[in-house]
Parts: sequence; C-alpha cells; structure tokens
Amino acid sequence: MVRVGIVGALGYTGHELLRVLIGHPQAKLTVVADLPRFAGTPVGEVFPSLRGRCDLALSELAVGDLAGKIDVAILALPHKEGMTVAPSLLEKGIKVVDLSADYRLKDRAIYEEYYKETHTSPDLLKSAVYGLPEIYREDIRRASLVANPGCYPGSAILPLYPLVKERLIEVDSIVVDSKSGVSGAGRGTNPAFMFAEVNESMKAYGIGTHRHTPEIEQELSRAAGRPVRVTFVPHLIPITRGILTTAYANVSAGVNTARCLNALNAYYAKEPFVTVCKQGEYPEVRHVRYSNCCHMGLRVNEREGRVVVVSVVDNLGKGASWNAVQNMNIMCGLPETSGIAAPGAFV
Amino acid sequence: MVRVGIVGALGYTGHELLRVLIGHPQAKLTVVADLPRFAGTPVGEVFPSLRGRCDLALSELAVGDLAGKIDVAILALPHKEGMTVAPSLLEKGIKVVDLSADYRLKDRAIYEEYYKETHTSPDLLKSAVYGLPEIYREDIRRASLVANPGCYPGSAILPLYPLVKERLIEVDSIVVDSKSGVSGAGRGTNPAFMFAEVNESMKAYGIGTHRHTPEIEQELSRAAGRPVRVTFVPHLIPITRGILTTAYANVSAGVNTARCLNALNAYYAKEPFVTVCKQGEYPEVRHVRYSNCCHMGLRVNEREGRVVVVSVVDNLGKGASWNAVQNMNIMCGLPETSGIAAPGAFV
Amino acid sequence: MVRVGIVGALGYTGHELLRVLIGHPQAKLTVVADLPRFAGTPVGEVFPSLRGRCDLALSELAVGDLAGKIDVAILALPHKEGMTVAPSLLEKGIKVVDLSADYRLKDRAIYEEYYKETHTSPDLLKSAVYGLPEIYREDIRRASLVANPGCYPGSAILPLYPLVKERLIEVDSIVVDSKSGVSGAGRGTNPAFMFAEVNESMKAYGIGTHRHTPEIEQELSRAAGRPVRVTFVPHLIPITRGILTTAYANVSAGVNTARCLNALNAYYAKEPFVTVCKQGEYPEVRHVRYSNCCHMGLRVNEREGRVVVVSVVDNLGKGASWNAVQNMNIMCGLPETSGIAAPGAFV
Amino acid sequence: MVRVGIVGALGYTGHELLRVLIGHPQAKLTVVADLPRFAGTPVGEVFPSLRGRCDLALSELAVGDLAGKIDVAILALPHKEGMTVAPSLLEKGIKVVDLSADYRLKDRAIYEEYYKETHTSPDLLKSAVYGLPEIYREDIRRASLVANPGCYPGSAILPLYPLVKERLIEVDSIVVDSKSGVSGAGRGTNPAFMFAEVNESMKAYGIGTHRHTPEIEQELSRAAGRPVRVTFVPHLIPITRGILTTAYANVSAGVNTARCLNALNAYYAKEPFVTVCKQGEYPEVRHVRYSNCCHMGLRVNEREGRVVVVSVVDNLGKGASWNAVQNMNIMCGLPETSGIAAPGAFV
Repeated sequence: MVRVGIVGALGYTGHELLRVLIGHPQAKLTVVADLPRFAGTPVGEVFPSLRGRCDLALSELAVGDLAGKIDVAILALPHKEGMTVAPSLLEKGIKVVDLSADYRLKDRAIYEEYYKETHTSPDLLKSAVYGLPEIYREDIRRASLVANPGCYPGSAILPLYPLVKERLIEVDSIVVDSKSGVSGAGRGTNPAFMFAEVNESMKAYGIGTHRHTPEIEQELSRAAGRPVRVTFVPHLIPITRGILTTAYANVSAGVNTARCLNALNAYYAKEPFVTVCKQGEYPEVRHVRYSNCCHMGLRVNEREGRVVVVSVVDNLGKGASWNAVQNMNIMCGLPETSGIAAPGAFV
Repeated sequence: MVRVGIVGALGYTGHELLRVLIGHPQAKLTVVADLPRFAGTPVGEVFPSLRGRCDLALSELAVGDLAGKIDVAILALPHKEGMTVAPSLLEKGIKVVDLSADYRLKDRAIYEEYYKETHTSPDLLKSAVYGLPEIYREDIRRASLVANPGCYPGSAILPLYPLVKERLIEVDSIVVDSKSGVSGAGRGTNPAFMFAEVNESMKAYGIGTHRHTPEIEQELSRAAGRPVRVTFVPHLIPITRGILTTAYANVSAGVNTARCLNALNAYYAKEPFVTVCKQGEYPEVRHVRYSNCCHMGLRVNEREGRVVVVSVVDNLGKGASWNAVQNMNIMCGLPETSGIAAPGAFV
Repeated sequence: MVRVGIVGALGYTGHELLRVLIGHPQAKLTVVADLPRFAGTPVGEVFPSLRGRCDLALSELAVGDLAGKIDVAILALPHKEGMTVAPSLLEKGIKVVDLSADYRLKDRAIYEEYYKETHTSPDLLKSAVYGLPEIYREDIRRASLVANPGCYPGSAILPLYPLVKERLIEVDSIVVDSKSGVSGAGRGTNPAFMFAEVNESMKAYGIGTHRHTPEIEQELSRAAGRPVRVTFVPHLIPITRGILTTAYANVSAGVNTARCLNALNAYYAKEPFVTVCKQGEYPEVRHVRYSNCCHMGLRVNEREGRVVVVSVVDNLGKGASWNAVQNMNIMCGLPETSGIAAPGAFV
Repeated sequence: MVRVGIVGALGYTGHELLRVLIGHPQAKLTVVADLPRFAGTPVGEVFPSLRGRCDLALSELAVGDLAGKIDVAILALPHKEGMTVAPSLLEKGIKVVDLSADYRLKDRAIYEEYYKETHTSPDLLKSAVYGLPEIYREDIRRASLVANPGCYPGSAILPLYPLVKERLIEVDSIVVDSKSGVSGAGRGTNPAFMFAEVNESMKAYGIGTHRHTPEIEQELSRAAGRPVRVTFVPHLIPITRGILTTAYANVSAGVNTARCLNALNAYYAKEPFVTVCKQGEYPEVRHVRYSNCCHMGLRVNEREGRVVVVSVVDNLGKGASWNAVQNMNIMCGLPETSGIAAPGAFV
C-alpha cells in the first residue's frame, strides 16, 4: 500500500484527487493538507460529497511531520506555490507529483516571461519530468519529481506529437483551437466565472498570451527536434468539465488521412488511456468525462492540404488529477491503471 | 466471482450498469443482451466511452443459453418488457433485478390502472421484493426477483418512511414536489426532450397521473399501517442527472426539527449510502451525482406546523443502476458496497 | 415622451432596464446613474451588448441635478439603498419605481425582522403602493412611489390571489415551492453562484427564513381578509432566467379544477400579461423568458382534495425590470404595454 | 405598412420571425402558412409563448390566394422546399426572402454536389441576391428574391471579407473554427440533439463536408477576386442560441493588429448591426444573443505571423430570422433597423 498525501485539497483538482484516491485499491490516503485555518476540519465537512466516504480531517502542511507518513505527495496548488513546497518534500525522500505549472517548462526564462514570477527552484527543473506518461513513461518511472501537464497541453500534445515526430505535418502551420469547461479556471471566486456570466455564452481568451502556449511548444519542439511555435487560442464553454481541442496543420506532401491515423495508432496501440477513432469518426467530450481517457480522431482535407485533428479529455481527469494518479502509479511501481480505470460517463 | 448479465444495454441505465459492472471487483460481466439487430456489435462501438474498457459484444437475448453462463441478470428494459423476460430467467435459476416497473406494485389492479397494460406475470408479484435495501435488506437477501424502485420513489420514500413510521407527520398532508434531470426520461427519441426544448426552461408534468405516485403510496402505506395518499408532482429540470425532492407535511403535535432528524439518524445510522444533514444544512444534487448516495435534510417550520424535507439522489445512481447493483450484491452475498462505493462527483 | 432615469445600472436588473428603455417608443432614457467611480464611462463600455445601441454615459447620482431632467426614476438598488434615495427624489417631484425591497412590506417591524436593518424611511410606507398592476392598477396610477414586487412573490401571488379571494382554498394549507434561475441572486460575486458550483446541480435554500415569505403573506392576507401564513421554499436551478412556482393548497368543499380555472380566468380576462392555461395544460418557463408575461395553470387532484398551481415568470421580466416599466407606464399615463409587449423567447 | 407572410412557421426560425414581426412597427403579419394539417390552428396554440400576442391562425400555403394579401414572403423552409415555393410567389409579384439554402450558391453544380439534390429553379440563381446587407445592400434594395445566408457563413464572412478584400491575409491559409448552439440544427426530432446526448459535451462534425463551406468560399472568392478555399469545421456546443467563430489566417507581410482593425472599422463604420471591438477586446456570445448584431475582434500574433479573428452572432438573429427581416426592411423601403434594433440579452 502506497501512502499518499494531498497538498492543497480544497479546489476542484483537490476534490478530484480525494475522489480517486479514496477508491484506489493500492494507495492509502493518509494526509490531506491545506491552509492552517482549515486544520482539524473533517474532509466531509468541506466536501459534503465525501461524507461517509472519508474519515480524514484536514491538516496544516508541516513537511517535517510528513517524513515516514507518506511515500508520495500530490500537490494541487496554484503556480508559484508548487515550488515553495516541492523541494523540502523531496529532501525528506517523498516523491512529488506537482499539478502546478512550476516545473513544466524547462526554460526558466520562459516560465518567468509567461508567469511574471521569479522561479525560486530552478535547480530542480532539470530533473523534473514532464508528466505525460504516454511520452515519458520511463523517465517518470525513475523520477522523484513529476510536473503534471496543464489541462490544455495534454489535449493538444497527445494527438500532435506523433504527427510532428513522423514529419507528417508542417510544424510552422499548427493552430490549436481549444474549448474548455469552466472548472478548468479553478475554484477561486471570480466575477468572470459566475453562472449567469458564463451560461449560454462562449468566449475566446488569452489570445497570444496564454500560459499553456509555451508548454505545447516545448513538447512539440522536442518531437520536431527544432523550435516549434503554435497559435493557441483557448475558449470558455458553459460546461463544467471537459476540453475539446481542434488542431489544424498543413500536411506534408502526399500525406493523407490513413497515414496520419496509422501514425497515431502505431504510437498509442498499447496505451490504456488513449483511443484513436476510426476514419470518419471523431470524439465527443462526454466519452471521456470523469475518466483518464483521451480520445482523438482526424481527417486530412486533401483539397486544402490540411489535417484537422480533434481530441477530448476531461480537464480534471486526464487533464489534471487522474493523470496525476497515473504518474503516481508509475513512480511507485503500481499497476498503471490502478484506481483510474473507470470509463467515461457518457451521460 | 458472480457472473452477471445485462438485459437491455442501450439506454442510459444500461450504460450506467456497464460502467459500474466493468469496474466491479467481485462480479464479472459475461453477457450484454439487447435487440437482435445489435447482436455481435462490440459494446465499444455502440458506446465509444467504453472503447478499450469492455471487450464484450452485444448478444441477442436467448434465455435458454444463459443457464450456466450467468448467476444474476439485471433487466434495464421498459415497463411491460421486464415481465416478459423475468419468469423464464427465474425458471433457469437465474436471479433477477428488474429495473422496469413491472414488479414494483403489489396490487395488480393499480399497475393496470396506471400503466394501461394487462399484467402478464401476476404470480410473481407476491414473491418479488421491492428493492430498497435500506428498508427491505433481509427480504432482498432471500429474494430471487427484486423490483428496483423508480427514480422518484426512492428519493421520496427514503426520507419520509421513518417520519411516517414514527408517526411524526400527518400522512394525509404529504406533498412531494420532485425535480428531475432529463436522463430520467430515458433515451428514446422524443421531441419534448430535445436540447433546445428543455434547456433554460422548466416544467411540471404528470400532475395527478404520474406512475410513480402509487409506488410512493404503497411504501408509505406500509410504514403507516394504513392507506396513504400523497400529492406528487414531478418537474423536468435542464440537468442531465439528479433528482431533488422537496416534501411537505404537517407535523404531529409537539414535533420539532430535532425530533425528526433524530428519527432519520436512528433509522439510517448504519446505512453506507444514506447521509442525514445536520440541522440547518440541506443537500445539493452535486453531492450525490455519479454515486449511489442519498442525502437528506429537513426543517420543521414551527410557525406553520409543517416539516420541509429535502433529499437528493442521482436518478441513474441510487435512482436506478447503482441501486440495482447494490441489490445484486445483497442477493449474491457480496459486500454491499462492492463496486459502488464512489462518492458524489461534486463538480 | 416621458424622461426616465435608472439609478443602479450595473446589475442584471439594471441591464434589463437599459435594454427595455432603449427600445421604449414613449420614454426617453436620459440619466443612468451608478457609483461615482463609474461616472463618465459610456454605457457601451460596461455592457458591450449595448455598444451602438445607447449613447449615454454613466453619471454619479446627484439628486439635486435631476429635477427637471427626469420625470420618473427606476431604482435598481439593493435593499436598504432604495430608501436612502427615494425620499429625496420624491421631494423633487420625481416619481419613483423602487426595485429594492424597502417599501414592499407595510409593517416596518416585519421588514426589520427579515432584513435585519432599521427602516429609515417609515413615513413613506403608507403611501407606497405594492407594484403588482394586476391587483393594484388604480393605486399605481395615482402613486408617486411604487414598490416593485420581489421576483418570487409575483409568481406566487398572481395565481393564488384569486383563489384565496374567492375562498376556493384553505389559506392555512398553502405551500409554495419555487424554483429560480441564478440571475435572481444578483450580480454580486459570490462563491455559491460560480458556474461550476451551480451547474448540473440544484438546492433548496432559505427554508423558513427567506425574505420573500412575508411579502407573499402580506398580499394573500389582504386577499383573505385575515392573516395568512405560507410555507415558502425557494430552490436554485441551473438556468439563467426564469422562475417556476408550484403551489399546493387544500381546496374548499366541492371545489374542482373548472371552478378554480374559472376564478383565474375571470380575474385575469383583460390582463395583457397574464395567460391562464386550459385544463390539462401547464406553463413552461421558456414560454415567458425575456417577456413581461406570467403564465399559470392548475389542477385539482380530487382524490387528495388538493389543488396544484403552476406559474412561470421571467425573474428579470415580470419578476423585476419589465414589471417596473409596466408600473412606470401606468404612473406616467402611457399605454400599459408600451415597450414591453414582446412575447416569450420560446428558445 | 408592409404586409408580410411567413411560410414555414413551426420551426425555430419560424417562431423567431413571428416574435420579431409581431412587434415590427411598420410591417403587418397577415399570413402564417405551414403544412395543411395545421391549417386553422391558432398560432398561440402551437406556440404558447405567443398566446395573447398574436391572433392569427395558421393557414395552408396557397400561393394563388396570397396575391393581394402580402407584399413580401419570408420562407422558413428546409433546403429544397424553398425553391419549390419561391418561383410562384415571385410570379405573383410577391417579394421573397428565402431562409433555405436553395438560392445562396451561384454555381448550381456546387449546390448539387453539397446538397445531393437536383436544383429545380436554376433560372433564378442569377437574379437572387446573397442576403448579407453589409456587403450587398444596394443589390438587396433592388432584388425580388434574396437568399438569406446560412448561420455559420454570416459569422465567418463578415469579419473576413474586409481582410481578404484589402489583401491583409493570405487566402490559402484560412481556417474557420465555428462553435454553434443547438437550435442551429433545427427543430426536427433527432437522437443526436436530445438533451442528455448534447449537454455537458461538445463535438466537431461535418469535417470536410459541411454545406456551409462553399457558401463561405463563394463570398471570400468574390472579395479576393479569385477562388478561395477554406478549412471549415463546425462544432456543437450545449447552448441554445449563438455562434462563435474563430478564424485563423497568415497575414501578409507587415500587417499588424492595428491595420486589420482599421480595415474592419473602415468597412463597418456606419453599419448599425456590426461592432468592432477595440484592440485587446474580443466578443462574447451573450453580447449578441437575441439580437441582429455581429460583434468581432481580432489580434495579429506577430510571432507566428497569423491573425486570430473572433466573431459572434445569434444563429437565429443575425444568423437567420432577424437578418431576414433586415433584408425585408431594405427590399420594402423601410428603415433598415425597424423592428430589429433590440440589443443583445447579456444574460
């Protein structure tokens, strides 16, 4: 039994970690830490959904006390807070999966440009592993610190990585148009995410400036072996959970739908959480809600010489907490699908 | 390992049974039967959410072939179809949990009045057990045929049963105002349930005629020891899953909030799926979505001498498929929470 | 041309007033006042929906300057703020329609009990008219100060008033179960109304304490000629606009559906904004969204001796801003439907 | 007073035409025609939202009887049916605004390829005017037959037309990613648009084959003076009304945000229904819901040399019925904004 602690429990990713870890057959949730003022409060009081399902009380984060109590910590903290906690946990021999953005970008300067913060833990950037198991499984297995990907990047990188790697698309032509549910914005109170401001509406935001842009670019650059720049535009959609990403790129000469699908199928054939749709089929968000799955489909419009790639994830599932548990499973030597094998909700 | 068959897989309750049983640690799903024209189709083709999660193909229902293949069948069929299938399954020694309405009402005449159908299997009405484990657990344990409750009745009966039994409320004054998500209407194509007809709207329906009325009355009459009639009004709300029931009744002399809460707490103290909210707190649908839980709260307005009872369930969870698996667990001697212990989704 | 000023423009009722008054053929919007820090900002900047539709800029409220500029002011302010502004406007000879709760309750003590505030303008309570034109049209015509009803009370009072007045129902048995869209909670930032906390959920709130209770009771007491107490339970539903109220009461001896419908039809025969559904039909929220209409239907369940009344309004339409314009039309001698005759949106 | 008839009243565009024309100050709705089996039914019976707002009954379409009764007909019919009705109306001297697709595409072969139908009225294709007033106002003024644009094309053509015309973007690089509410799919009963299949989900559809592709291409080709091909991908989003289109294109050398915005501003400076957002601002669907407005914004990401254009319309407003009334106003010599000046709903 792996002993797990959640640090930062009160947001949506925190609740999702609680839900998943409570039912995990090979992990035992032993610590749920958050701000001092919540210390002692039973989890079932802050989340009525967990009444009768979790006997733990919240505790104040005290890293010194954690040694010997947990084997791995999952940090569900905002950016900048991840890097204030991770180093001391690692020093105590506790493995860390960090859901914040702090260790995702290898280039500290890019982090500081996009996040407008000084990076206070740059030494760990090198050993931190980008937590997409479908790409970095072996690195994750050996890692002490895994940077869980942002919700958008996962949805874009998974379908595009093989296409870039196999040189099926022109990397300078990539456009990523993503649509996200509102829980992706976190639980902080913000007038822009009030029900009546969001419902029955849609908007684009962060055009040209969104922080997930460099994350997508970093990974596609690795695939390409040279710097890649993408146009990334996220949109807010009035659903609670789920991301649908539609990506566009010019295809290389002679590339058709079948060749692109073959590349995806070859790359993901053995992946338990990736499904490649058959030609003519495309994924829907409901197929992956409340799961760790990523479904993808594509079509090459030969008339325009352009591929249209569609992928879906649950932003709290494969896009955050469930993927974090997948990372934890790998880091701790557990079966990779343990506790996160549930299929999508459909309704 | 209990071997289970689902009969009627293509609706929302069918999908939900598939989701739950795929992950059930002590049951093995071996047969998924539906209409002949789907025979041979992989489950993952009719439900893309299940791709990579379920290797079974749909089969045509052939009761003769099922003997020796399954220990228990869960019928996710419309009313009238449950009673055409259950008798032959029982004859083969297969236990049956029936999600249709066919065996819920003990009085055949009332069934025929409300459902406008001749009952073709009246002999089994006596031995069929009404499948609310919180009330009939021991009968369910010994039953071969369990009639899973309707989605609305469960939400109304659970909080009202103890209040009636303890004579805390006047049984002639009960009003049950229920609000349901749209999946409760089933998956049949119907213009009334098209997105643009339902979204951003609400309506009451079935006033004075809804088929779940006699089901609520039957169970509250048992609790009262005399015939009880309730005014039941269901409403359609633009959410996919979930029921919130608000019930009203005049309280008996001297009855206050604490006494009513005590009655509920006493009755449900050991129930794994029932949560009674503290005084001043009331349940929300999100606390039980995607779970088998029922949360309930209440307040006696002493000024008016009336209790207000609020309860929530997921109409596909405690209101249908998850409760059916709870019944199956009990009938088959499995731990009662096996496979259905997940907490509510919260978001 | 009547000259109108809106005081308190930045909330949902303020925007709705702007929308309606911009298109009003016999009123000219001349002042849009709000907090000092917005003074000078064009309306189209705070509400992009109004770009190119309204040339006004926001101004700081300066009552002294308003004399001679406006004939009538509509106050879209929170409770307690209405009574700080209304007296000085009235002194300047400006008629006032107040959307706050401050002048709705005739009994100052009840106001102070429910709103936990000292009433600072009790002298005006006597002359203020409760602004339901279908009941108080002639008083409104002569009034200088009209208290626009709360969103819930309008939906409950309109269908119940004639039934109480004609003694068709037992007034001690009235239960009012209301369901409201989220815009009814106003535009203030509140974690409870964030999209992901409300969407796909429902809850009851304010049981036994909601401030609209005494407002309903005041008006039904007037109809009954004696004090009436009702059990009122509001619910929050994940739609933006609209209220559906389901009311229950025991009927007097011999009262059936037809008699109740006759009473409503007689009372509302000439009302331009009230529609009584035929026997067997009930209203839906979508039929009145974005309109000043109230639709109502009912059925007497003779078996239980109880009537079920269903009514719908748009909480920002008949429940607030459009009704305020109806009051303004009446007070200013304009045709009553001027500017507010649009039918419901349906989709 | 212009006399108007609606042909095809029972769908969503039909209801929207009814709503708008009932309140139109200079048009009189005199005929509402639909299938024979509805003849004689009061409009208020098929649409309860219109009770007390419209005294007309539905009539069977009898073109012979219409001469002398109406000056203009608006056809809210599916494709293929528009062209069976329009010719005989025109022969009787009745002007026609056709919401079907039948007269939108100048090239009959492309119509037949995308719609899989033989065009039965090709003679009228030449004189029919594509009904985007912002581009073809003078032609519309002189036209007898106007083909109202599809909902998606309007949202894409309006912002892109000036950019193409001014050669600010490379026409071979255009990608149009559109997101639509469900009412755009029409009112026909279809399992794919049932509430529980659509809610809390999203999907792309019609990739490479959608019928609005050639319509967008026709108009951008006219702007470019040479054939243009675009990649167009529509998506279904769980809202009732509204389209948000995000378009991408490589910019010509030296083109920046300001230059693109200047082009839009110059083109649309005097347009009553088009709003160009300031630099750094982008439109939201709620700003135009329930209106005839189109809002647009853009940004050139100089790093990638690509412009991102965002536009919003209400698919039943500017995308269908309100735009049809705008066309009618122009064709009949009425003030262009008459009856359709309402601003967006915001909430």
